[in-house]
This record gives sequence, structure tokens and C-alpha cells, in this order.
Amino acid sequence: MAGVEVLRRIAEGGTPPLTVRLVNWADEEGARFGRSLFGSSAAAGSMGDQDELRQRRDAEGISLPDAIARFDVDLDTALEACSELETAIAYLELHIEQGPVLESLELPLGVVLGTFGVERHLVTFRGQAAHAGSTPMDQRRDALAGAAKLELEIREIAKRAGEGAVCTMGGVVTRPGIVTSVVETAECLLDQRHLDGYQLAEMLSIAEAASRKFAAEEDIEVSWERIWNIEPILFDERLLELADEAITEVAGSSHRLPSGPLHDAAEVSRAGIPTVMVFVQSLQGLSHTKLEDTKEEHLELSVQALDTLTTKTLEAFA
Amino acid sequence: MAGVEVLRRIAEGGTPPLTVRLVNWADEEGARFGRSLFGSSAAAGSMGDQDELRQRRDAEGISLPDAIARFDVDLDTALEACSELETAIAYLELHIEQGPVLESLELPLGVVLGTFGVERHLVTFRGQAAHAGSTPMDQRRDALAGAAKLELEIREIAKRAGEGAVCTMGGVVTRPGIVTSVVETAECLLDQRHLDGYQLAEMLSIAEAASRKFAAEEDIEVSWERIWNIEPILFDERLLELADEAITEVAGSSHRLPSGPLHDAAEVSRAGIPTVMVFVQSLQGLSHTKLEDTKEEHLELSVQALDTLTTKTLEAFA
Repeated sequence: MAGVEVLRRIAEGGTPPLTVRLVNWADEEGARFGRSLFGSSAAAGSMGDQDELRQRRDAEGISLPDAIARFDVDLDTALEACSELETAIAYLELHIEQGPVLESLELPLGVVLGTFGVERHLVTFRGQAAHAGSTPMDQRRDALAGAAKLELEIREIAKRAGEGAVCTMGGVVTRPGIVTSVVETAECLLDQRHLDGYQLAEMLSIAEAASRKFAAEEDIEVSWERIWNIEPILFDERLLELADEAITEVAGSSHRLPSGPLHDAAEVSRAGIPTVMVFVQSLQGLSHTKLEDTKEEHLELSVQALDTLTTKTLEAFA
Repeated sequence: MAGVEVLRRIAEGGTPPLTVRLVNWADEEGARFGRSLFGSSAAAGSMGDQDELRQRRDAEGISLPDAIARFDVDLDTALEACSELETAIAYLELHIEQGPVLESLELPLGVVLGTFGVERHLVTFRGQAAHAGSTPMDQRRDALAGAAKLELEIREIAKRAGEGAVCTMGGVVTRPGIVTSVVETAECLLDQRHLDGYQLAEMLSIAEAASRKFAAEEDIEVSWERIWNIEPILFDERLLELADEAITEVAGSSHRLPSGPLHDAAEVSRAGIPTVMVFVQSLQGLSHTKLEDTKEEHLELSVQALDTLTTKTLEAFA
């Protein structure tokens, strides 16, 4: 809606010096098939392995190609979306912060330096199912113990990796998962992020080594399978300056911060198009929950900032 | 099959001094509805709250009354099974050990002292779902951290509670359980067992206190819901002696050990009927897995021991 307002304001002022387009990307979140940034990666030409995407199924067993066919999208022709970005010379995106930084600084708006690199893995510990009543504690090969140790260790790994590093175990699936058996397999969803590619690789390597140590301690096995990854992406220096100026004009002061969450802007940026994002404050830093919220006055400021940034960009890039 | 062989041998020898009956109890395991010892608790009159059983549903949503109706069993009349035990004066049961004790002692057979008391709880940690990319490590309320700490702590609690104590977290369910969110709720299945009722209560109390401490450390909440419990049950002293004699005659030497797993014998025993069990060695102590196995020569010895014990019991109780 912010983009529509900016287009409306531009249209009222006559013909702009450059064509301005508004895009509503398909499936940024990727919650259904585990594949984030679907539409923007197609347009950016970085969609990756089409055959692998064809294999993906949702929780009900519906395949990705069947699901998108319902909306007249075809994987074979999806990459033709690249042509839409051929003449693009700048990309702007407004988003809620989804974190607590701006609120803690009492600022409504901020400029996004770039998006964290992400390493996502399925870490599987394998022990031995055994009767919960008859198997002495010292003879167990409990896969859940490996998962528990790793869950606690990734927090230390993130803290040691410095400012902005995050590591999350978002879920554990235990099998057989019954009250009368020691856990045989524990499948852990691990997400690690950092704005620095070297540090991200370090965090991953340390977590892998820790998991192997825990597996040895517990006489269980561990295996790692990469679900997805993306390198850190730094936004355009010239646009960062313009965004700082726009926010300062609208809200008095600006602040630069990295983005832990991924955004479609990351895909556009790695397609070589100068890109920047503006964040608006999230209340309590909450997102991906029904409690997600932003003050109405901050939403208004954010539309004004996007509008001002658009004007500055049109002037600078024309 | 061991019972059938004993009945066949008795029948060949003419009329025994007492009636000998063979029972195949319904649903000892309780895997489908979480309710162990279904048939034997009905016969023992210790089935508990019928209304609560009526509410139970399996993973497909089928209710317990509907499931048992398919086999012509009716909850309302299930308790009439009590009449079957009215004239019983002794109860004998043969079972695999499901644990590693007899194998470690290189003994084929052992006498079961009784069954552990069991406390089963659903322990739920509640934190706050938050974006895995944008939420700083020190601002998270991660329910999985509480579960991980408890999983590691219950092992220490069991070790401190001495010989035969076991504590198991058999499963964890994480919600929302997606890679991009901090875990909001972690539901843990906790099973604690001990042959001593006082020690069992102690273990439960210590685990509860530990879970509250972890919840406070992580700024999350914890709640406990009892799924099921049973007190420790000690078998009949006279039958223990007879079982020791029978095993020594058949296998050279005997050994007394408690049972961590539950058995139908526990229900019969707490109905006031003199009861004892014989264990036969399990290979590698494994049970509740496809790897569960017992040597054929040990199975043969176990049938001989049950037969000898039956003869001794008939003589002693006639």
C-alpha cells in the first residue's frame, strides 16, 4: 500500500524522469515448501535447481509444480521473469524491522545495510530406541541428548560470533517419540545467520564440530544436510546515503542496521541492481506471531520516507 | 506359547490339584491410546476413570470406545472382567527382560522382585515465537532451551536416585516448529521410574523444581500435567522363593532383579493375588525396537522354568 501511495503521488505530479514500477513478489516466506524468495529469485535468475524444486512437496503431499499451476505459474517459464529486471536501475523496498533494534533506540525508521547470510541445515542425531523402563541410564544411546546439547551450544556459538550473529534451532522431531522409549532419532532444524560471510562459515564449522563431539559423548551418530543457504548481501552505498537523507528529513534522525531476516531485496541486489531497504519499527521486536504490530504513526512516517527516498532516487539516477 | 506348552504337559499328566487357566491380556502396551495395561486393569478393578477413558482418541481421532467396539469390547461392561479373578490364588507370568542385566551377568533367567513405580507427565515449556533472523540472542524466550536443559538434567536426577532409577524424555513436540522462528512451545513427554515409592516421589519433585529454575533462567513458563502413574509393586515372597528354586533347577543359578517396564502382573498383584514373574535374557538389552531378540536356547529354558514353577506353585498352593 505504501508503494501505491508513492505511485499515486508521482502520477499527480506529471511524468517522472524514469519509469516507476511496483512489484508484489510471489511467496517471499516459503513456509509451504521451505523455499524462501520464490518470485524474486525467479526474476533475479538465482532460483537454482529447477529439478530439485519440482521434487518438493508440502505437508499434504502436494507438489510445488501442482500448487503453483493453480495460479497459472509454470516452473519452466518462471525464469522468463528475468526480462522484467533487464532495464531496472534501482530497487527500493519498505519493510517492518521484525526485530527490537529501532524500538530500543526509540527511532521509527532505519536504513538496512544488507541482509545476513544464512546457513540452514537439518541436523539428525541417531541413537538407539530402547525401553524407557528397563534400559539403565549409562547404557542409553539417546539421540535427544545430542539435540539438547546442540540447542544449548548454538547460543554460545552465536554470542561468541559477535554483533548480530544469530543461531536458532527452530524445531526438533523425535522418533519414535513415545513416552516408553529412549529417542532413536532427533531431527533438528538449524538456522545460522551473520552479515559477514567468513564469520558465518566459522559459526557453521564450529557447530558441526560441536555436534560431532556431542555425538561421540553420547555414543550416537550425527549427520548434516544443507536445506538452503545464501551469502550475506550488502546494499548499494549511494542508495544507503539517499535513504539516510530521506529518513532524517522525515523523522529527524536515521540509523543503519543489518537485516537478520531475508528479503526479496537480497535477490534483486545479487542480480546486480542497486538496492536499498527502509525499516519501520516493530513493537516488542516481534514477528512471525499474531502479536506482530507497528504503531500507526510510524507506518505513516514510513510511507513518507519511501516517498522521499523515491524522489531522491529518481533525481540521482535519472 | 510357553503357557500353552505348560497346559499341554499338565493335561497329559491327568487332573491337576487346582484349575490352571491361561490368559492373553488385551493391550498391555497402550501405544494407541496412551493407556497401558488395559485388559489386566479391567480384570483387577483398577481401570480408573471410565469417563476419562471415553474421551481418549488415537492419532487418527478415533475414540477408545469406538476402537474397542470393533472387537466387541464395551467399556461399561469391561469391569465385569473382575469376576474372572475372584477365585484366583496365584498368578505366574513369563516375559523377556527388555533390559541388559541378565546378559551382563551371563544368566539366561531371573526372578522379578516387582515392578517400578511410574510417573508420567507432559511437561510444557511456553516462550515466545520470534523471527529467527532478527531477534537478538539475549532477547529470546526460547521454549526449546527449557526442554533441552530438562532433558540433560533428568539424567543426573536418575543417577543420583541410585540403583535402577530411570528418567526418560521420550519425545518433544515443538511449535511452531519452523526453521525461521524461535520455538514458542515445547511439549516434553517425561517418564520416571523407581522401585521405591518415596524415591520416585523425590525424583518427580526434583525434576519439577529443576524445570521451574530453567523456566526462570530462560524467561519462559512451564506447566506439568500428569498423564498416568502407578505405585511400585512388590511380588509375593513365597512365589519369589519358588521361582528362585525353579530357575536354579533349570538353569543352575538364579538372580533377583526389579522390572523397569510395566507388566500385567503388576495389576494382578495389586488386586491382592499372589504374583511372580520370570524374566528371560534379552540380547543387548534391547526392546521396543525391531532389534529385540532372545536366544532360542534361552527361550527353551524359560518354558522349562515356567513349567517347573507351575508345578511347584500347584504343590504349594493346593
